[in-house]
Amino acid sequence: MPLENAFYTAEMQGDYQLHSIGRFELEEGGVIEDLQLAVATYGTLNADKSNAILIPTWFSGTHATWEEVYIGPGRALDPAKYFIVVVNQIGNGLSTSPHNTGDPAIAMSKFPHVRIGDDVRAQEQLLREVFGIETLALVVGGSMGAQQTWEWAVRFPEKVLRAAPIAGTAQNTPHDFLFTQTLLEAITSDPGFAGGEYSSHTEVAAGLGRHADIWAVMGLSTDFWKTEFWRGVPAPEGEEPWRDFEDFQGRFFRALFQSMDPNALLAMGWKWQRGDVARNTGGDLAAALGRITARMFVLPIDRDMFFPPADCAAEQKLTPGSELRVLHSIAGHFGLFGFEPSYLAEVDAHLGELLGTQV
Amino acid sequence: MPLENAFYTAEMQGDYQLHSIGRFELEEGGVIEDLQLAVATYGTLNADKSNAILIPTWFSGTHATWEEVYIGPGRALDPAKYFIVVVNQIGNGLSTSPHNTGDPAIAMSKFPHVRIGDDVRAQEQLLREVFGIETLALVVGGSMGAQQTWEWAVRFPEKVLRAAPIAGTAQNTPHDFLFTQTLLEAITSDPGFAGGEYSSHTEVAAGLGRHADIWAVMGLSTDFWKTEFWRGVPAPEGEEPWRDFEDFQGRFFRALFQSMDPNALLAMGWKWQRGDVARNTGGDLAAALGRITARMFVLPIDRDMFFPPADCAAEQKLTPGSELRVLHSIAGHFGLFGFEPSYLAEVDAHLGELLGTQV
Repeated sequence: MPLENAFYTAEMQGDYQLHSIGRFELEEGGVIEDLQLAVATYGTLNADKSNAILIPTWFSGTHATWEEVYIGPGRALDPAKYFIVVVNQIGNGLSTSPHNTGDPAIAMSKFPHVRIGDDVRAQEQLLREVFGIETLALVVGGSMGAQQTWEWAVRFPEKVLRAAPIAGTAQNTPHDFLFTQTLLEAITSDPGFAGGEYSSHTEVAAGLGRHADIWAVMGLSTDFWKTEFWRGVPAPEGEEPWRDFEDFQGRFFRALFQSMDPNALLAMGWKWQRGDVARNTGGDLAAALGRITARMFVLPIDRDMFFPPADCAAEQKLTPGSELRVLHSIAGHFGLFGFEPSYLAEVDAHLGELLGTQV
Repeated sequence: MPLENAFYTAEMQGDYQLHSIGRFELEEGGVIEDLQLAVATYGTLNADKSNAILIPTWFSGTHATWEEVYIGPGRALDPAKYFIVVVNQIGNGLSTSPHNTGDPAIAMSKFPHVRIGDDVRAQEQLLREVFGIETLALVVGGSMGAQQTWEWAVRFPEKVLRAAPIAGTAQNTPHDFLFTQTLLEAITSDPGFAGGEYSSHTEVAAGLGRHADIWAVMGLSTDFWKTEFWRGVPAPEGEEPWRDFEDFQGRFFRALFQSMDPNALLAMGWKWQRGDVARNTGGDLAAALGRITARMFVLPIDRDMFFPPADCAAEQKLTPGSELRVLHSIAGHFGLFGFEPSYLAEVDAHLGELLGTQV
């Protein structure tokens, strides 16, 4: 029986469609008998199917932030020019996930391990079978979406003309693995988690709160907090303004993560920890990145504490046809949420330039 | 009844002496009826008592690391020249602490809140009453020891000739507060913690382990893990070499923090979160730092993720007679442990130069 959770509804996330791609065998050996991908599209596919852009989603995210923050008329990701397909990653709460599946074989704690490569293979099948898309003008994603973007460029080089991984790496670092581990431990250590067999996500509120508290440290930056940048972030409608930084942390990030499903976060976190394009080349990262033929802008965020520019730059150097373009945000990794017009202008400038490049 | 804990013994930490400074009233309103400070000294106080150096300790630390790593013949902190007094901070497990006190009024969960200013006042009283020391040639400390160093320079400017805060700030930042909060939550969320009334620290092993896992992220650096720097860190005597980074994390940092007392870590963590010299000047940081007359080298570590150079530099700019000298360590904040001869050479060069400065 799927669990009720208002966060994972079209009312909260915006419209999307479910597409079944059938029985799907996973790299780790598990099977999803009827894999449903939650997909949102913007714009119209042109006759020669040359204007398609794919956006895979990040940890805990959905298509909503892309729709609200990055896609729009006059923007680089303009639905008047492009057919933009945002595919929610497997296990994110909208696509087939531990709490929403009707299949008892994979429900809740029985959900199988999914890898970045599984998402990319599923997306490739979806684009081909549902939309007849064989090449992509651009793949762009942030964080875990960047991991999927890298994987796309390595695994299907002939299909990816341009790629823009924002704030994410091709091969996850041990430091990032350990960071993600603390996020997952915050959840699994909550007695209410009950080994993944809770009957409502609200039973895991304490663990989800601690999870959010770790995000407040690693997801943002010392300057975000010190300058009280958060005072400019609107409080939810009908609520009083933030009193202080702890109040902001409680009513913004704690409230956000406490609305999510714990098993969904665990499924995504396990996947995130193991993102690694070198799985395609027997562990040889340089060989994997050497396969890339896409024109690529690698876009780390300057204050990012777990996908820092240095880690992204090291991979960019191994990637032919790529350039490093560092983005700037006082919000660190959470700059991805688009708190700042200046950050969004930078993203638009880079994506606009990349899309304008003949390939 | 004090709890047994082998970590807090002279056998593990090296020799020290307990000095009682009597009844001690705390800034937050609590009282310690018989405050015992655990003190280790090196060298001999000269006749005019002009060669005294004070070292306050960091979170979870004792005098041991200073003795093993920073103090020695031919080093800047040379016992042949200086009388070096390392005072273990209140609540660190050796000085009066929740688990080791014989006073039921302050045992375990009843331990009162202690502030950085309390430590500094207690140390001043100790130095005066026990050793007759009225001026200090140098105060030097790392992390929470740096917080105490800043507090000394602001609170007793006439007594501090030179000061060297390493990897720590005068006023804790909100980001650092939130980081420390995650450390504390890892412990208090363990059901074995039992509201602070566990009967052995081993009952809180899971929480202490998660606490250590957060340290592995924020205490080190992405390069420490990526370059496998830890392979050069010796495994404990009689144990096999580290297999991989998770094995190192388990047998090094988890093992270390799991040997400590949970209430001691909480007492220190609460204190750390609220370090703020501006309490001496009605909240005016610039006024507080403007009081400093010591010659001061401010020594952040380049890769430090929670006392980053930028935060230290901002305070240094407000401090007359100070210079910023950035230290370099691939181990980030835990560079303080002295993993690298190059880091220790830098520290020695700066402290040697500072001690050679006429004031």
